[in-house]
Amino acid sequence: MANIKWVYGFNEVEAAEKQVGGDWEAVRALMGGKGANLAEMTRIGVPVPPGFTITTEACNAFLAAGEQFPEGMWEQELEALKEVEKETGKKFGDAANPLLVSCRSGGKFSMPGMMDTVLNIGLNDETAKGMVKLTGDERFVYDAYRRLVQMFGSVVLDLPGEHFEDVIEKAKKERGVADDTGLTAEDWRAITERFQAIIEKEAGIEFPQDPYEQLKLATEAVFASWNGRRAVDYRNAAGIAHDLGTAVNMVTMIFGNMGETSGTGVAFTRDPAAGEKVLYGDYLINAQGEDVVAGIRNTKPIAELQQDLPQAYAEFADICQKLEKHYLEMQDVEFTIEQGKLWMLQTRTGKRTAQAAIKIAVDMVSEGLISKEDAVLRVEPGQVDALLHPQFDPAAKAAAGRLAKGVNASPGAAVGRLYFDADTAERMAREEGQDVIMIRPETKPDDVHGMLAAKGILTSRGGATSHAAVVARQFGIPAVVGCDQLEIDLEKRAVKAGGTVLKEGDYVSLDGATGEVFGGQIPTVDPSFEEQTDLITLLGWADEISAQEGIRDLPEGSPTRGLQVWANADYPRDARRARTFGARGIGLCRTEHMFFEEERLPIVQRMILAKTDQERQAALDELLPFQRSDFEGLFEAMDGLPVIIRLIDPPLHEFLPSYEDLLVEMTELRLDAERGKALPSETLASKEALLNAVEGMRETNPMMGLRGIRLGIILPGLIEMQVRAIFEAACNQALRGIDVHPEIMIPLTGHVNELNAVQPQLQEVAQAVMKEKGTEVEYKFGTMIEIPRAALTADRVAGVAQFFSYGTNDLTQMTFGYSRDDAEAKFLLEYVEQGILPGNPFQVLDRDGVGKLVAMGVKLGRQARPDLEVGICGEHGGEPSSIEFCYTAGLNYVSCSPFRLPVARLAAAQAAIRRPALVV
Amino acid sequence: MANIKWVYGFNEVEAAEKQVGGDWEAVRALMGGKGANLAEMTRIGVPVPPGFTITTEACNAFLAAGEQFPEGMWEQELEALKEVEKETGKKFGDAANPLLVSCRSGGKFSMPGMMDTVLNIGLNDETAKGMVKLTGDERFVYDAYRRLVQMFGSVVLDLPGEHFEDVIEKAKKERGVADDTGLTAEDWRAITERFQAIIEKEAGIEFPQDPYEQLKLATEAVFASWNGRRAVDYRNAAGIAHDLGTAVNMVTMIFGNMGETSGTGVAFTRDPAAGEKVLYGDYLINAQGEDVVAGIRNTKPIAELQQDLPQAYAEFADICQKLEKHYLEMQDVEFTIEQGKLWMLQTRTGKRTAQAAIKIAVDMVSEGLISKEDAVLRVEPGQVDALLHPQFDPAAKAAAGRLAKGVNASPGAAVGRLYFDADTAERMAREEGQDVIMIRPETKPDDVHGMLAAKGILTSRGGATSHAAVVARQFGIPAVVGCDQLEIDLEKRAVKAGGTVLKEGDYVSLDGATGEVFGGQIPTVDPSFEEQTDLITLLGWADEISAQEGIRDLPEGSPTRGLQVWANADYPRDARRARTFGARGIGLCRTEHMFFEEERLPIVQRMILAKTDQERQAALDELLPFQRSDFEGLFEAMDGLPVIIRLIDPPLHEFLPSYEDLLVEMTELRLDAERGKALPSETLASKEALLNAVEGMRETNPMMGLRGIRLGIILPGLIEMQVRAIFEAACNQALRGIDVHPEIMIPLTGHVNELNAVQPQLQEVAQAVMKEKGTEVEYKFGTMIEIPRAALTADRVAGVAQFFSYGTNDLTQMTFGYSRDDAEAKFLLEYVEQGILPGNPFQVLDRDGVGKLVAMGVKLGRQARPDLEVGICGEHGGEPSSIEFCYTAGLNYVSCSPFRLPVARLAAAQAAIRRPALVV
Repeated sequence: MANIKWVYGFNEVEAAEKQVGGDWEAVRALMGGKGANLAEMTRIGVPVPPGFTITTEACNAFLAAGEQFPEGMWEQELEALKEVEKETGKKFGDAANPLLVSCRSGGKFSMPGMMDTVLNIGLNDETAKGMVKLTGDERFVYDAYRRLVQMFGSVVLDLPGEHFEDVIEKAKKERGVADDTGLTAEDWRAITERFQAIIEKEAGIEFPQDPYEQLKLATEAVFASWNGRRAVDYRNAAGIAHDLGTAVNMVTMIFGNMGETSGTGVAFTRDPAAGEKVLYGDYLINAQGEDVVAGIRNTKPIAELQQDLPQAYAEFADICQKLEKHYLEMQDVEFTIEQGKLWMLQTRTGKRTAQAAIKIAVDMVSEGLISKEDAVLRVEPGQVDALLHPQFDPAAKAAAGRLAKGVNASPGAAVGRLYFDADTAERMAREEGQDVIMIRPETKPDDVHGMLAAKGILTSRGGATSHAAVVARQFGIPAVVGCDQLEIDLEKRAVKAGGTVLKEGDYVSLDGATGEVFGGQIPTVDPSFEEQTDLITLLGWADEISAQEGIRDLPEGSPTRGLQVWANADYPRDARRARTFGARGIGLCRTEHMFFEEERLPIVQRMILAKTDQERQAALDELLPFQRSDFEGLFEAMDGLPVIIRLIDPPLHEFLPSYEDLLVEMTELRLDAERGKALPSETLASKEALLNAVEGMRETNPMMGLRGIRLGIILPGLIEMQVRAIFEAACNQALRGIDVHPEIMIPLTGHVNELNAVQPQLQEVAQAVMKEKGTEVEYKFGTMIEIPRAALTADRVAGVAQFFSYGTNDLTQMTFGYSRDDAEAKFLLEYVEQGILPGNPFQVLDRDGVGKLVAMGVKLGRQARPDLEVGICGEHGGEPSSIEFCYTAGLNYVSCSPFRLPVARLAAAQAAIRRPALVV
Repeated sequence: MANIKWVYGFNEVEAAEKQVGGDWEAVRALMGGKGANLAEMTRIGVPVPPGFTITTEACNAFLAAGEQFPEGMWEQELEALKEVEKETGKKFGDAANPLLVSCRSGGKFSMPGMMDTVLNIGLNDETAKGMVKLTGDERFVYDAYRRLVQMFGSVVLDLPGEHFEDVIEKAKKERGVADDTGLTAEDWRAITERFQAIIEKEAGIEFPQDPYEQLKLATEAVFASWNGRRAVDYRNAAGIAHDLGTAVNMVTMIFGNMGETSGTGVAFTRDPAAGEKVLYGDYLINAQGEDVVAGIRNTKPIAELQQDLPQAYAEFADICQKLEKHYLEMQDVEFTIEQGKLWMLQTRTGKRTAQAAIKIAVDMVSEGLISKEDAVLRVEPGQVDALLHPQFDPAAKAAAGRLAKGVNASPGAAVGRLYFDADTAERMAREEGQDVIMIRPETKPDDVHGMLAAKGILTSRGGATSHAAVVARQFGIPAVVGCDQLEIDLEKRAVKAGGTVLKEGDYVSLDGATGEVFGGQIPTVDPSFEEQTDLITLLGWADEISAQEGIRDLPEGSPTRGLQVWANADYPRDARRARTFGARGIGLCRTEHMFFEEERLPIVQRMILAKTDQERQAALDELLPFQRSDFEGLFEAMDGLPVIIRLIDPPLHEFLPSYEDLLVEMTELRLDAERGKALPSETLASKEALLNAVEGMRETNPMMGLRGIRLGIILPGLIEMQVRAIFEAACNQALRGIDVHPEIMIPLTGHVNELNAVQPQLQEVAQAVMKEKGTEVEYKFGTMIEIPRAALTADRVAGVAQFFSYGTNDLTQMTFGYSRDDAEAKFLLEYVEQGILPGNPFQVLDRDGVGKLVAMGVKLGRQARPDLEVGICGEHGGEPSSIEFCYTAGLNYVSCSPFRLPVARLAAAQAAIRRPALVV
């Protein structure tokens, strides 16, 4: 151990690199982020106050040995201090020309809850007097001294901060002044003494006058704070490993408060809000670093430093350029100017808004700083999403009173008046031109017309994949769902949230990105995709990267070698939007959504309630033209690209009134009749017939009931009509010169024999239509893989299906046995909170379980059919981590709602660049 | 081809064996079952009429060549005929001493739809005259001749049989006689001529006078009939390969109708009904074979042949002995005696009842004929099942009028009066002592008291694993479920089936083994297990075999190397029954069933509706003694054996009134209130509170909702109470000297973290109780594997769980995405009917999908924990094919309802003997 180097001067970064084998990440792990950056700046010639770093390894050794410094460490620390003395020409503990240092912790990752900073180490009663002589500024010196004692007490000895603050408050009161600046040198000296007495009383030790003792205790305190409760809790929550340890940095004190040629500031090398290439920050003349942050005095914009201290400004601007070129990233820096001399105290990658992240990445490519791949990796997919939805003005939102918080189901800001049912919501929006927020305990398919007319959707039940959430995301409508603090009273048309009661017509504001609900109207800003030229540029690069990428382990003959991004779109208008947003195909068109439209629903109900095959066929014949015309629009919008159309999926009772409503109505009618109220006799009979029909269709677990291909087998006329409509539309458009690529998707297959039972029949319909129309179109028949058994037997299924599309919503339901209508509210969110699940598997694909089935299905399927086209059309298709998984599992495309396309295109390209290994 | 031997004399079986390499199955494939057995009898010296077989290979060659005999075949057939002439001393086509033969088809498997038999080939106008001279019996000869012509026309030429029957009918009318015996020689001659004319008219050919032409056409006709429509349909339905081909047997005609020393009969070598070792059959003197079967004359029991023809009888009895010793199986034989000389015409394995199968198998072991393994393989597990349930008297059942047919959910016969709800059913049974059939559209857990009091259960909804079905099988109560031809009117307390209406109190009879429902009372017979000594002997051997078996591919340290049979039992009385039926442990005790008992349910409801933790804990404290006393009984009954107790599984709303009922009640109360009817105000309020509570607990898909371990995590007090009750009971009994082995099973695990969240807590409870009681008991904690994800991640789950028990009911639901409450009635039975599924996967485990998950889970689980105990406790644990799968997958035990134990023990032993390979 004696031979181990525990301490590195800021000018020894090469030695550290050598120690860890030249890897910069390893240097950061050894010296901590702050220490590594200070050393790195030193290496490239940026002025950094002399200092040194005690490594994270020393911390770990200290903790492992029961809080004992490892052998040789303290000696190395003293040695390093001597080097600093040499460089600065000052001497630690020397009253004549004292060296003061700050002690700062700094691990690999920035971490609240760790011991932070102790300033002015080296001051004691003697050196303080020396400093007074040296600077002639007694007030400055005793202010500095009391800061040391105060920080030592609160930070090193962990005494409550109030002990010290109370003293200052009392002093100010006695002096009759409002703030610290009113206190004199004498006051600070008295306060310093008082602080020392507090330490003696509360911690039972004397404030150490020996500077080396100060140094040692500060070092120990930083090390020990790694295992403090707050730090451990934070690491548990943030998923940071407990064995990293923290480094300790000892940095020569620089004083920005030594007169009008001194100052201090923080700045970004580019505008972190808009991304423009201008210095962005604030500074103060004659002040210390914490004063800038504390907001005690009004800071000046960084540009004005050019007037105040032109030379220092010029040097600072050069250094910023230099740092950007060196780090190839926008930097967030701290600096201090001591009597005209500029010192850099910190540099790190700067945080930025989504818009800035994109602009900076794109600009840096133009500037030749980074590659397109780098640019694509620089932007978090989640940031992009926020850019496409209306957003609240941040200041106005911060000022607004929050009423409740629910599940952040669909991002974006929405402001409007509350309406409690779909019909009213639609009427108010369409006829009165109001901005509407539709509020319901939960939504159902027949609420869709109201939802589509609304600016936002609010429910008190359901989770992130409830009907309300899915529809909202599909159409890019902001939504907060499962907001169980709301007590909705549908009868009274009112909702209670905490103490507040809102009535129908009252304004609310929803933030779908955070799940927050506010009373009243918060101003919003509404972005447009077309105007976001930087984003469009970046996504163009992303697509290039995804398309170039051709070395995934896919069999020869696979339809695409990169991961494409397609869209889920049910209507022509969605398809057009999807194309604008860069979709390479439609991965899912849900044909049943078309059935809910107002003029069609009665026909659908007639079809369902038909008593004879003839009646049923008549209704189907009426539906066909509607479906055909929708498909014609889709094909036109997607000219040249594939369009996957899923045959009807939901159980039929979704198209009928609810059983419970009918039951109540029927009971009322029955009691009326019993009490002799005259009723048209057919009212009771027809209501009873409807009730019986709905009862006959009820299912205990409809999710696992008669729907999808099961319905197609029991009621073949319905899907035959759909296939006829698809091919009539395709042929009509082909004859008009449109390049159509229909792919018919059969939902809910669990056994290959289900496909065997319907697919040949449907293919006959397709052939018949093409013959009638006298033209041929290319087409495929394929299936959703959403039942575990289909994935387990994918080799057999692929013997019949020409393509697979993973319906990971249902696959997640079945694999976990979680009903997505119930689980989130009943236990799933609780599971996530308790850490039983790492996340909500309906949002982020569960790789260990569901992912294993997906990967197994891809492998088995391609064994049977090497050119099998495989995609995903569940909610996960728009979620970055899930997209990465899809890439590794060898899928050909992900399909997501149009608004998620930019996110997905970026995530797909990032996966292509990172090439993670498949681990299931 | 010319060198191929196409034709084998009955005395050439060695040559056939040599040809196919000595394998008897291959001889049967080559010569067909009938031909092979005739040849085999010839070899062992049993008198068989001389004859020969034309092989199935010849048939296949004939069909492949476009219905041309293969080269050399016809020559070989003529050659073989010459051999027969030599042996019999007669000559084919010789008027002086004509040889007549019958032509009979016979493939490897007996097959209706094939051309069957043509008798008397060789007769023509000339040989007929010769026969008359020879026998002096003109009537006999022309009756024989007309039979040849008739069969030739209908069988060889495929003319409609009525053409010929009409002629006979007309002749009888003209003669004024009632049956064939009234027709004279002259009549038969005229009829023969008439038949020949019909052939000429209808088929356009002359009836061939050339006997060789007859022979050739008959041979061709048998071959061609292999591809006839009826034969092809039959093979498709029965799963017989189409490339087997049929053989043709030409057998010298023997006449049992040549006077009082002639006769014919059919017999079994043992009693096929009771299994006694006595000859069992019928015969007729002076008759032909078809007369015995046709039932035209009254046959005599075979024993009387001893008086009629003592020498022939003695020879026949010897031959039967000889055949049994040779085939080592009870035989079903046909014989003819021609003028005192006995000829055997057929022998084959005889069909028998379940009881006979068991007795014969056991007797044959005592007689030293077969081994115990053979005996175990001789009995179909399904047959054993039938023996343990009451059965209808077959004749009475045949005479009864069937009302409807549903799903055969739980075997056994039941007779009783219909009652339409559980309370009435229970009252009528308990107070009035009536035999009750409880009828409901479907049943729910709170119907169980009525079901337990009933003799039989009848529902119009639900399938083979509906609540009604599962409970019925569990308790061995006969049940017919999902009988959708029944229209149940609960208001009118009546049920309509077709035209019949039955009212409350009317008698019905159910056959749970067939799913049939009859009006009125059919007499039943009620077997007892203890009295079935042969069955007990056989099952003892089965257990020996299962236990000896020790070479399955299981890791060292596995708890058992053979497949054991355990039982699902919730109550001490079930456990005692299970022990009687041979259970080696309890694989599943469903603790929640105890909650439904009358005095406990109100406490359970109080626990569920508790508003405070205190209220809830108070209710739990009240429940604990009930649970403890149930467990004490279980441990006592299973002294020395493991008892797996599953913690609460169903969602809580199952213990509350139904939402729909409450909704109707509430609507009624509301309307009453609106109309000013005076109500105690708390009635409305408390009903509303209950409705709200139930509504709050409602789930869209309860099967995938808040239940099992999820409920345990959300409501930890409940399962802690259960674990406390288990350990208090175990310790109490251990202190009394009982050897207890509790194993606590956690249901519905999907993620190992769920176990991590509850198991340590529960183990603490266990430790605490043992400390309180001052004793230690051995125990295990384990989990159900019923969620696909648990099987997919079984390695992680086994890191915590000490045992797995596959809940294949739920695993089948999730893997297929089939709700078992809905699927069977809505589409599953239709799927089975259409052949989309090979069977109902809730009855027979689906090896390709569910089985793949099971096998994967076993493998992964044992990787993590080599001594992992793995069993199955779903319905499949009592089903033979599923048990075979469990054996191959390496499970340690199957657990089934007590009544299925004999079936399962037999099936387990059969798997151990057959050792099938694992194919998933």
